[in-house]
Amino acid sequence: MEKRNVLLLGAGGVSHVAAHKLAQNNDLFGDIYLASRSLENCKQILESIERKKNYKDTFKKIQIRQIDALNIPEMVKLMKGLKISITVNLVSVFCNMSILEACIETGSAYIDTAIHEEPNKVCEDPPWYANYEWKRKDRCQDKCITAILGAGFDPGVVNAYVAYAKKHFFDTIDTIDIMDVNAGNHGRYFSTNFDPEINFREFVKVWTWIDRQWVCKPIHSEKKVYDFPVVGRQTIYLTGHDEIHSLSKNIYANSIRFWMGFSDHYINCFNVLRNIGLLSEKPVRTAEGVEVIPLKVVKACLPDPKTLAPDYIGKTCIGDLITGTKDGRKKEFLIYNVCDHRLCYEEVESQAISYTAGTPVIAAAILIAKGNWDVKKMVNLEELDPDPYLSLLKDMGISTETITI
Amino acid sequence: MEKRNVLLLGAGGVSHVAAHKLAQNNDLFGDIYLASRSLENCKQILESIERKKNYKDTFKKIQIRQIDALNIPEMVKLMKGLKISITVNLVSVFCNMSILEACIETGSAYIDTAIHEEPNKVCEDPPWYANYEWKRKDRCQDKCITAILGAGFDPGVVNAYVAYAKKHFFDTIDTIDIMDVNAGNHGRYFSTNFDPEINFREFVKVWTWIDRQWVCKPIHSEKKVYDFPVVGRQTIYLTGHDEIHSLSKNIYANSIRFWMGFSDHYINCFNVLRNIGLLSEKPVRTAEGVEVIPLKVVKACLPDPKTLAPDYIGKTCIGDLITGTKDGRKKEFLIYNVCDHRLCYEEVESQAISYTAGTPVIAAAILIAKGNWDVKKMVNLEELDPDPYLSLLKDMGISTETITI
Repeated sequence: MEKRNVLLLGAGGVSHVAAHKLAQNNDLFGDIYLASRSLENCKQILESIERKKNYKDTFKKIQIRQIDALNIPEMVKLMKGLKISITVNLVSVFCNMSILEACIETGSAYIDTAIHEEPNKVCEDPPWYANYEWKRKDRCQDKCITAILGAGFDPGVVNAYVAYAKKHFFDTIDTIDIMDVNAGNHGRYFSTNFDPEINFREFVKVWTWIDRQWVCKPIHSEKKVYDFPVVGRQTIYLTGHDEIHSLSKNIYANSIRFWMGFSDHYINCFNVLRNIGLLSEKPVRTAEGVEVIPLKVVKACLPDPKTLAPDYIGKTCIGDLITGTKDGRKKEFLIYNVCDHRLCYEEVESQAISYTAGTPVIAAAILIAKGNWDVKKMVNLEELDPDPYLSLLKDMGISTETITI
Repeated sequence: MEKRNVLLLGAGGVSHVAAHKLAQNNDLFGDIYLASRSLENCKQILESIERKKNYKDTFKKIQIRQIDALNIPEMVKLMKGLKISITVNLVSVFCNMSILEACIETGSAYIDTAIHEEPNKVCEDPPWYANYEWKRKDRCQDKCITAILGAGFDPGVVNAYVAYAKKHFFDTIDTIDIMDVNAGNHGRYFSTNFDPEINFREFVKVWTWIDRQWVCKPIHSEKKVYDFPVVGRQTIYLTGHDEIHSLSKNIYANSIRFWMGFSDHYINCFNVLRNIGLLSEKPVRTAEGVEVIPLKVVKACLPDPKTLAPDYIGKTCIGDLITGTKDGRKKEFLIYNVCDHRLCYEEVESQAISYTAGTPVIAAAILIAKGNWDVKKMVNLEELDPDPYLSLLKDMGISTETITI
């Protein structure tokens, strides 16, 4: 079987990790290309791979290209020219649909990690996937396109955790609580760990799935303290998140919630910025007549998340707390991963948050390349067999732990 | 004696009050003009004066003109054409020197309320007046120009309070502590009471005069609680401010400090904005390539201080705590004004902070018009006779109280 050419789109923090993981597994693919608006960012990633000596086959280097991912004809031309058959989309979520269109047109498999967004819309009606992605489900099926949506950690691995629990540990599922805490410290006054523009858009309102219905709550209105393995007691807040929007359709469970950990300091900074209107995506006009979106100015002032990695210490813990029944008995099951910022930096010059998102996306690409997941249709992670995935993830640096309570 | 024509420059919150006060005293002047970049803002002020029926002589309405106060030839042409002989400068402090130049050229008296600033410089070396204003002292004297610097409340009335204390109550002065608290509530999440761009520029570092030397301290590094008359216990912070830069030269005192009251909430919001870099006057570039000054974006997001007045409740208290000796005895003297936000709104549709700044500046214009203060040179407030001023201020709505301790 001919090895498949891969196109990795985007040169941000997650893409940095994904490129390292492609390099570490480059024997499994054909030619590997990294493309972004900025060739300079691509070059920096290649330099990092060289520094860390992360090419498995040192004769098969990643090649770089410049591309505007919103320009479908340009994308199609590039993908046809390079004979791309797997496209990993890690550029801004505003480009998801243009990239998917290019994949449908060229016959390439498609993988992304976050829901498509339109710049002028925030927190649209649930389920989010139905607004853009699932509208292209039929066309993917017709053209035998494998499209795996939300294939990072959350969404992504946490969806596979649900599939894994359902396959092996539960007859019925009552509640799924996905919990994401970063107990690390980057030493800066305030920073988001992903693109602030995307990060804060998550926090406009909280869509959650309770008693088999969509419920909308104000942001940060519900919190609790949970005692996590390894990282201990952490304050977590009910938050809206992508995975609820597919799990609620694909998994029969009564309630599906997402919780994210925030320090008091983070919440304070966030509240000040939001209450003043600085997180708004609606343009304001300065007294001098410059029209600008406040959130984009905040982003320009905050540290580039990529620059946090060298000083990051501590660990992340992300996982699913699932309740339900097995063999007629009530059961509570925690399945999670703990990832160490410093170890990630040693391996790929990144921090744990990018590492846990960028590694799974390449695991998915490998499973497509190997055939296990080359399903010739559009799916969310929980619709795929979790067993080869979790096994592969372990080999790639993302181990899964479970506790039955 | 022919009555003198007045030009009021600027149509912001302080100018709103000054225009009302000119209207209430329009029998003392010749023609009165209000000029600003925005004719619309001028019109709104005139409408407010009509609503409140504040013209003393109802046949002598204020006329409005459009002007760019940075354009000296345009200013000169306007002032010559209107035969202006008293110019009240209440536009942005970035325009002070261009307006003063136009006054020197046309022979008009000049009054302002805050130190000149250059957009690209913040908190220059002390004394601040020596950087721009005092460099034009000789030219004012040569051309017999009356130029009164810093003629609002602080600087302004608080400088006159020092002159008054020195004239009547002290032989020697040891310390002068100027204290400015706003114990009012505007009901908004966060707002500055003046132009945020100017407001925050005050808080970069704290120049203060201690033991007859300039000392520079970090902002908000020194605070205390003071029990004020009427408004009670308030937390005040050592702050840099204009008046220290003239009083330190004109008044023989060992220490001159300025203290400003801030709530914990204000300090928290300020710190978050500042630590993130959003109060910076240095431009940042967004990912989309828009170059913008963060502070100007914050300003665009915050409420226009002019809009706070209708809901403002509570009172301000601004005054000087002066220690020294009289007839060989140690003495402590508090001289202050208390101003009520709601009463200000009833009288002139403004809040107390604009009222206490805008009323004194017109008192100064009246004293120039009457001849008491037409000194034909450049002075700071403490160099003028405080007696007719405090007496006039009382008639105009700003009463002075004293406590000898």
